[in-house]
Amino acid sequence: MSNKGITKRDQDYSQWYLDVIERAELAENSYVRGCMVIKPYGYAIWELIQKELDRRIKESGHKNAYFPIFIPKSFFSKEASHVKGFAKECAIVTHYRLKESEDGKGVVVDESSKLEEELIVRPTSETIMYDTFSRWISSWRDLPLKINQWANVVRWERRTRPFLRTAEFLWQEGHTVYPNDEESKKEVADMLQMYSDFAREYLAMETISGKKSESEKFAGAVDTYGIEAMMQDGKALQFGTSHDLGQNFAKAFGIMFTDKDGEKKYPYQNSWGVSTRMIGAIVMTHSDDNGLVLPPTISPVKVVIIPIFNEDEKEKVLSYCKDIKESLGDIEGVEIDDREYVSAGFKFNEWEKKGVPVRIEVGPKDIQNSQAVLVRRDTGEKENAGIEKIEDAVETMLKSIQDSLLSKSKELLVSKTHRVGSYEELKTVLSSEKGFVLAHWCGNSECEEKIKSETKATTRCLTKEGIGSSGKCIICGKESKEEWVFSVSY
Amino acid sequence: MSNKGITKRDQDYSQWYLDVIERAELAENSYVRGCMVIKPYGYAIWELIQKELDRRIKESGHKNAYFPIFIPKSFFSKEASHVKGFAKECAIVTHYRLKESEDGKGVVVDESSKLEEELIVRPTSETIMYDTFSRWISSWRDLPLKINQWANVVRWERRTRPFLRTAEFLWQEGHTVYPNDEESKKEVADMLQMYSDFAREYLAMETISGKKSESEKFAGAVDTYGIEAMMQDGKALQFGTSHDLGQNFAKAFGIMFTDKDGEKKYPYQNSWGVSTRMIGAIVMTHSDDNGLVLPPTISPVKVVIIPIFNEDEKEKVLSYCKDIKESLGDIEGVEIDDREYVSAGFKFNEWEKKGVPVRIEVGPKDIQNSQAVLVRRDTGEKENAGIEKIEDAVETMLKSIQDSLLSKSKELLVSKTHRVGSYEELKTVLSSEKGFVLAHWCGNSECEEKIKSETKATTRCLTKEGIGSSGKCIICGKESKEEWVFSVSY
Repeated sequence: MSNKGITKRDQDYSQWYLDVIERAELAENSYVRGCMVIKPYGYAIWELIQKELDRRIKESGHKNAYFPIFIPKSFFSKEASHVKGFAKECAIVTHYRLKESEDGKGVVVDESSKLEEELIVRPTSETIMYDTFSRWISSWRDLPLKINQWANVVRWERRTRPFLRTAEFLWQEGHTVYPNDEESKKEVADMLQMYSDFAREYLAMETISGKKSESEKFAGAVDTYGIEAMMQDGKALQFGTSHDLGQNFAKAFGIMFTDKDGEKKYPYQNSWGVSTRMIGAIVMTHSDDNGLVLPPTISPVKVVIIPIFNEDEKEKVLSYCKDIKESLGDIEGVEIDDREYVSAGFKFNEWEKKGVPVRIEVGPKDIQNSQAVLVRRDTGEKENAGIEKIEDAVETMLKSIQDSLLSKSKELLVSKTHRVGSYEELKTVLSSEKGFVLAHWCGNSECEEKIKSETKATTRCLTKEGIGSSGKCIICGKESKEEWVFSVSY
Repeated sequence: MSNKGITKRDQDYSQWYLDVIERAELAENSYVRGCMVIKPYGYAIWELIQKELDRRIKESGHKNAYFPIFIPKSFFSKEASHVKGFAKECAIVTHYRLKESEDGKGVVVDESSKLEEELIVRPTSETIMYDTFSRWISSWRDLPLKINQWANVVRWERRTRPFLRTAEFLWQEGHTVYPNDEESKKEVADMLQMYSDFAREYLAMETISGKKSESEKFAGAVDTYGIEAMMQDGKALQFGTSHDLGQNFAKAFGIMFTDKDGEKKYPYQNSWGVSTRMIGAIVMTHSDDNGLVLPPTISPVKVVIIPIFNEDEKEKVLSYCKDIKESLGDIEGVEIDDREYVSAGFKFNEWEKKGVPVRIEVGPKDIQNSQAVLVRRDTGEKENAGIEKIEDAVETMLKSIQDSLLSKSKELLVSKTHRVGSYEELKTVLSSEKGFVLAHWCGNSECEEKIKSETKATTRCLTKEGIGSSGKCIICGKESKEEWVFSVSY
C-alpha cells in the first residue's frame, strides 16, 4: 500500500485517476505494453460485477459457452467492414516454437515453425463463433440460439490507460441468432436496457443510451446502440454496446435455417458486451480527492472495523470489535483491521483510499457508552450507533450511500447536459465544462467529421427523446429531425 | 443433438470417448487446430466445478487476480529449465497489424508492425507473475502472498483430444510466496490434499498422489507432486499438480524480502493447478456404453421430468409434471422436457447420453396411482415413487448415485493396481490390463527411460506408502527404498 497522496481532480484529472487506481490497489501496468495486472482488490470488484451480470444474462435465457482465443486470419476477411475495423490493432500469432539462440544466451523464434495461416488473438468473437453457429443451426427449431461468453480479448491500442483502454481486457460478449428481424431487434433493445438497469441498480450510475452514428458503429453491424456515462470531468464514457448485425454475418458465414414453411433462410443476429472498462467508469463517477468511492453493492469490503487502543486495553477493544462483527452477521464483507504495526490513523487513510463504504471506529470510550462510531465514505459524516441496534444502523447507512451515489450520478449527468442551437454555442460549452451537448445534426458524415476534427467531440448517440425533434443542423443548416448527443469521450 | 449411436468401450475406447463427448454436446473441435469449442452443456459443468473449487481456494486464504496473457520472450529465458520445458510448444505473437493484400482479396500481415520483442501466449504464468511479485514484495509483512488466477492458457500440442489435451485450455493456477521453506512445502502438500478431497467429495473420483520423478516434474520446479486418476481402460490420467518451486524463480526474478531479523532473503514459492482436463477425467471415469454419466454434484440438470401422453391427456400430464417439479423445490437443476416434436423414447435416449442422474417418467397411469417412475442413470434401475414423498425419494436416489459412483471409482482404482517384483511381470501386466503398476525403481533415469521406451509406461508418482519400502530396482537390480507407481498415461 502506497502512502503517497492523491493528486486533486481540479489540478490534474488524468493523474488523479491514475493515483486513485494505484492507491486503491486496483491494477497496475505490467512489463507488457498496454497490458494491466488486475490486483486482488480490483479483481474482487470484477467478481462482484460478474456475478450479478451473469445472473441477469442467464435470466434472459442465455447460456455460457467458450470459444477459441485464436481466430484464423481468413475469417476476418469474410465480413468486409469487420476486418477493416480490427485489422490495425490485432495481436498476430505467426510461429509456434522457440529455439536456443546461437550465442546460447537466450531463445529466438524458430523460423521453421511458421504457421500456414496466421492466427489473430480475438479482439471480439463474431467470426469464430459464427463459423461454429453455421454448423449448429439447420432448422427453425435451433432458434433462437442465445450464447454468452466471459473471456479475455486483445486490441492493440496505442495509448492505454488502466481499465479504460488496455491491450488486453476482460469482458462478456453475448451472441444471439433469431429467425426474424423483429425478435432480433427487440433483443438489441432489451440488452441495452439490461445494461442501463444494471448500471443504475447495481453500480449506482445513471446513463443515457441510443443509436450510434454510421461512423461510430461496430465494424460489421447494421446498427450499434450504446450506453453512455458522464464522468466528473465532463467527458463521456462508452459503458457498453449492443449491435444489430442483421444478416451481414449470417451471409458471410453461411448460417442458414429451414423455416417452418420449408424455405431456407438467413437468420438475424445481434451481439452485445461490457468489459472491465466499467471499473474505470465506476472510479471516475463516484470517487473523490481522497481516493476511491465504491457503491456498497460492489465493495469487496463493505464495512471495516478499526480498533483504537493502548496496549493495556487491547484485548477488551478487540473482543468488542469481534462482538460487533458478530452483530453484523447478515452483512457480507465485514472486516476487522487488527494490524498492530500501523496506527489507527494510517488505517483510516488506507481504507478511505480503498473506498470502503462504512468505517466503524471503536475505542475504550465507545465501549463505556455501549456504542461505536460509524463513518460513511461518501460524505465523511460520522454518527454514534448504539451497540444494540448497530446492524440496523449499518444497513441503513449502506443503503443511504448507495442511493446517494446514484442521486449524485444523476445530478452530474443532468447538470452536464446542455442543449445548443448553434455550432458556436457547442464550441463554447465544449471549451468550458464539456459534458453532453444536445445539438441538431443532419446525419451527413462531413458535418460530423468537421465537429470532430475541430472540437474533438463525437456523436455519442441518438436517444429516443432526440428522434423526431425538429431543428437545423448546426453545421450546414439543413432541416434535421434528429437531436444528437455530442461529447468529448474516453 | 446427434442421434447416432455410441461406439462400445471394448470395441474402440478412444472412439467411445469422442462419441460420448459429441453425443452429450460437451465440446467440439473448432476450425483452429487443437482448439476446442466448449459447448453450453460442457461449460455448465465447468461452471459447477469452478464454483466449488473457487470456494475451496478462497477458504485456504488465496485471492483471485488477473495477469496478462502475453509473456515477453526474455522472461522465459530467466529460469533455465522453465524455458526448455515450454519453448517447443508455444504460440508466438510477432506482429500487431494486418493490411489489405495486393490483390485486394484479403488481408496479410503488415511487416512494418513487427514487435521489438516477441510475446508468448501464456502456457503458464510463473514468469509474468513473479516479475510482478518482485515489486509487490519487500518485507516479511508482505508474506505469505497467496494468489490464484482463473484463465485460459495455450500449449501448442501436436496430438490433441477434447479436454484431455488441447492447444488452449481453461484452468486455475495458484501461486504462493512464503518466507521459509517449511511453510511453502506444507502448502504444496495441503493443495495436493485439497485437490484429492475435491476429486473424491465432489467429482466422485478416487485418486492417488505423490512426488513426480525428475524427468516428469514441472520445468523449473524443485519437486512436483501429482494427483493421478485411473481410467476405465487402465490408463492413468494426471488430474492436477502442485509444484515446490523452492527459490528457483525467486532468484531468477529477483524476488527478495527483508526478514524480521533485518536481512534480505529470497522467499520460497509454490504453484498448483487443475484444468478443463478434469472434465475428460470425469467422462472416462464414470461414463458407460450408453453415454455420459455425471455425478449429481456437477450435473447441470440433476433431474429431468418426461411426460408421456396422447394428445387428449396432454394438459393433465403436463400439469402433473409441473406439480412434481414444484414438489422438488429444494433440488436445483430440475427440468421438464415438454417438447412435442420428439417422442418420449427419443427424450429418454437424449438425456441418457447427457448423463442426467435421475429421469422421472410420468404417464396417465402414474397419475391414477399418484406416483411417478424414477430411473437412475448409473444403473438403469427403476422405482415407483409415491407423489407425497417424491422429494425424499429423489434426494435419496441422487445421494445413492453420488456414493455409488465413488465406490465404483475406488473399486476401479484398486482392481487396476498391481504390485510386481520384476520387469517381466510389469510388462505382462501392461500388455494385458494396464493399470497402476507398483514396482521398485532405483531412481536412475536410465532405468526409467528403458521402461518408458520399451513399454510406454512412465513413473506416475511415488506415494507416501511407496517411501521406505525395501526392494530391488526391476531394471538394474540395485537396492531401492522406493516403490513407484508406473502406468501408461493420457
